[in-house]
Amino acid sequence: MEEQKDNVIYVGKKPTMGYVLAALTQFTNGAKEVIVKARGKLTAKAITVAEVLRNKYLPQAEVKSVKIGTEEVTGEDGKTIRVSSIEITLEKNE
Amino acid sequence: MEEQKDNVIYVGKKPTMGYVLAALTQFTNGAKEVIVKARGKLTAKAITVAEVLRNKYLPQAEVKSVKIGTEEVTGEDGKTIRVSSIEITLEKNE
Repeated sequence: MEEQKDNVIYVGKKPTMGYVLAALTQFTNGAKEVIVKARGKLTAKAITVAEVLRNKYLPQAEVKSVKIGTEEVTGEDGKTIRVSSIEITLEKNE
Repeated sequence: MEEQKDNVIYVGKKPTMGYVLAALTQFTNGAKEVIVKARGKLTAKAITVAEVLRNKYLPQAEVKSVKIGTEEVTGEDGKTIRVSSIEITLEKNE
């Protein structure tokens, strides 16, 4: 299992603004970097989270890197499927 | 209007494999780089296009860069909305 880090936001099915607020809170609490992660169709939402944060709430935040990849997910039926993933690293400039 | 370039694949509503094949064809025809672009929810599909191409069909292809952004789109009703966008540059290593 991957270690759960404080400055990682996992984007799920809740409304976009919740994740924007979570990222903003991390920066407000002193984080220099926040990583926004998502899988499957939610990768599109992760991009919007990063963009809304930068454009509306935190202009000092820059996209440091964007990584795309493929992850294996095992469902309840035991079957393993492959899904696309994204990892957006945001950095706050002082 | 943006200039339509040969080595740019715009991901739309058709099945994923069509775009994978389009990108593969560009590389087969000698392109050194292929750029996969999408907007809105289709950004998730663009990631899958790049990943399927790399993992199943063209292991020599590498992700050179991933850019995310926001674009303004004017609908038929004249209203302008903002949507997220992605631009994945794939590079073929010899």
